[in-house]
Amino acid sequence: MKLPKGYLCAGLSAGIKQTSKKDLALVYSIVPAVSAGTFTKNRVVAAPVTLSRQVLKKGKCRAILVNSGNANACTGQQGMQDAQTMQKEVSRLLKLFPSQVVVASTGKIGELLPIQKIRKSLPRLVASLSSKRGNEVVEAILTTDRFPKTASFEGTAGGKKYRLVGIAKGAGMIHPNMATMLAFFMTDLAISAKTLNRIFKKGVEHSFNRITVDSDTSTNDMAVILANGLAKNRPLSSSDLLRFEKGLTQVMQELARLIVKDGEGGTKVVTVHVEGARTQKEAEKVAWAIATSPLVKTAFYGQDPNWGRVLAAAGRSGAFFDPARVDLFYNKVPLLKKGRPTGIVGEKNAARLMQKGEFVVTLRLHAGRGAFQVLTSDLTVDYVKLNADYRT
Amino acid sequence: MKLPKGYLCAGLSAGIKQTSKKDLALVYSIVPAVSAGTFTKNRVVAAPVTLSRQVLKKGKCRAILVNSGNANACTGQQGMQDAQTMQKEVSRLLKLFPSQVVVASTGKIGELLPIQKIRKSLPRLVASLSSKRGNEVVEAILTTDRFPKTASFEGTAGGKKYRLVGIAKGAGMIHPNMATMLAFFMTDLAISAKTLNRIFKKGVEHSFNRITVDSDTSTNDMAVILANGLAKNRPLSSSDLLRFEKGLTQVMQELARLIVKDGEGGTKVVTVHVEGARTQKEAEKVAWAIATSPLVKTAFYGQDPNWGRVLAAAGRSGAFFDPARVDLFYNKVPLLKKGRPTGIVGEKNAARLMQKGEFVVTLRLHAGRGAFQVLTSDLTVDYVKLNADYRT
Repeated sequence: MKLPKGYLCAGLSAGIKQTSKKDLALVYSIVPAVSAGTFTKNRVVAAPVTLSRQVLKKGKCRAILVNSGNANACTGQQGMQDAQTMQKEVSRLLKLFPSQVVVASTGKIGELLPIQKIRKSLPRLVASLSSKRGNEVVEAILTTDRFPKTASFEGTAGGKKYRLVGIAKGAGMIHPNMATMLAFFMTDLAISAKTLNRIFKKGVEHSFNRITVDSDTSTNDMAVILANGLAKNRPLSSSDLLRFEKGLTQVMQELARLIVKDGEGGTKVVTVHVEGARTQKEAEKVAWAIATSPLVKTAFYGQDPNWGRVLAAAGRSGAFFDPARVDLFYNKVPLLKKGRPTGIVGEKNAARLMQKGEFVVTLRLHAGRGAFQVLTSDLTVDYVKLNADYRT
Repeated sequence: MKLPKGYLCAGLSAGIKQTSKKDLALVYSIVPAVSAGTFTKNRVVAAPVTLSRQVLKKGKCRAILVNSGNANACTGQQGMQDAQTMQKEVSRLLKLFPSQVVVASTGKIGELLPIQKIRKSLPRLVASLSSKRGNEVVEAILTTDRFPKTASFEGTAGGKKYRLVGIAKGAGMIHPNMATMLAFFMTDLAISAKTLNRIFKKGVEHSFNRITVDSDTSTNDMAVILANGLAKNRPLSSSDLLRFEKGLTQVMQELARLIVKDGEGGTKVVTVHVEGARTQKEAEKVAWAIATSPLVKTAFYGQDPNWGRVLAAAGRSGAFFDPARVDLFYNKVPLLKKGRPTGIVGEKNAARLMQKGEFVVTLRLHAGRGAFQVLTSDLTVDYVKLNADYRT
């Protein structure tokens, strides 16, 4: 993975995981950077989330220290002390202020961090920082992800080339089985903290906030971006900015898609597209009701174009529409026209296209101009098995 | 099943189901009755729901005709005509007004009713009406329920004995896999239509509206009560009324419990009890978030006292509370005290009690006096298999 200018990365095994897999990683900008971040909206949050929120408020983050194998959640005052220790030790070694270091954790909850192991490993981690070790970070943040998740984008601004790299981990089963989403972004673009913050939040809204695996949000979710300006571009023109925004959003959407694809036990990535709702808010309600319905999601798994379940989920969403006007498509195959089933041929064609791993369900309500789109996975036997196994 | 005074029942196979199982049933009061009903809140409703809503508005229903095997949903104008035909034919045979007949359907959606078969069977159905055939109705309304569901209550009002009988069907997998809840109640109590309506709706609120199997509500859900006054009690005193209300609610709660117990693929009945929320509204939010969380429900299945998932579900519910003050119990076993895990002994004890089919999860938020309780099932491998099987 080619990092943008001025970033160094490293990852290693500090012995937090019970296996010998990598579980501690560092991202570092060699020059001051601006930063932005978004965090879980869960009321129950892990100590590193509380701490890193404060860092991102100042917008001057230069380093991210992340561990997997332990979420440092529900760990009380000791947990907060441990998160602060991680922050302080790294800032000391890198000669930064603590307020320039974001800390993130993912893994078991309710257990204290093995903070001595982390402490002991930090000098080695810092010593191994390199522009060639981005992949170690990608690897070290994984928990039960089945594959690593990265995406990148290259653009020009004022004649200068810049690069954006995003890495993420997805919904993985962790003792005691908490699914956490982490995403980190590095770019060498020169951009103001204020603009970065606005664009980053908008991008998250259009990507990570429009996916669902099992509708449970974690205590540890976090997305952070650093921009260190080493591309040395002039202040961004509005078209430069638009291109960056588009590129960033695409990278985020690609990572979001990979997270859904790697959803626990999942075999499908389904785009639920709702249009013609009275308002966007109502389109959102309908899309989420369909995308989180266990009956709809098991039908996706069974490759059953079950229009009845889709329609019933829309009907209980709270949005207004006339069932007698609704059209439903799987890709381009119509299953309902004006609320009535199109018949067995359509169902057979739809069942066939569902065999592919990815497809689009489009519901047209004909009640207005509201539209919304959500990515979801299927609900599978493996999902239940993965999540029901008693912790050993 | 002993019916209250003045009720006749019958059920038979009209050939709507592909098997030879009973699929058409009739409930009839030999004298005028008052009635009340509640219906699905889904925006997509079957023709019989639209029709029966009108009947219940008048509150003078004397007969209920119900078929299983076909939901008469998403069937357009022909569906409404068929529902009206059912209503008219029965009222003609029983010498009632059509506006005294409720029609209900459950089964496949999107297919037209075999209305000629139903028509042909109606004279035989009416001819076989008997006070001894309540069980035929119980049987004829089932779809993929694993067991029949009835409950009853006897009381006295003004020195006169009266009886209440309730029958229900639950969340069964139906081609194309729509779960429908139907519940019918008969009593010989003399009560005004207005009072009956108020008490019935309140009872539904405290029973059928507090259960969840998979958070999907059907297009056909319906609960109806008839009260024909043959107990010949004087106007109800306030204590008589209170006792009836209590008895009715208990019967409803028992049926609701049986529906959850028979939830698709379910192996557990779990009471989620939330107390100490800022308001009742917030307690409701927390209880529903826990009771519908796929991660929590798979942990119930796995007999894993996964307090992390329960707490995380509460945290994303939107209700306000301080995670550092929360207590969590499985039956009487504490798993969290002031937000911190109690340790491995508690977890082992909780895992043991989860082996029983029924247990209570109590979450105390210590933020106020709001309380709410929901019954839920677990999410199992069989649930997914049942609902993923492609329609054959």
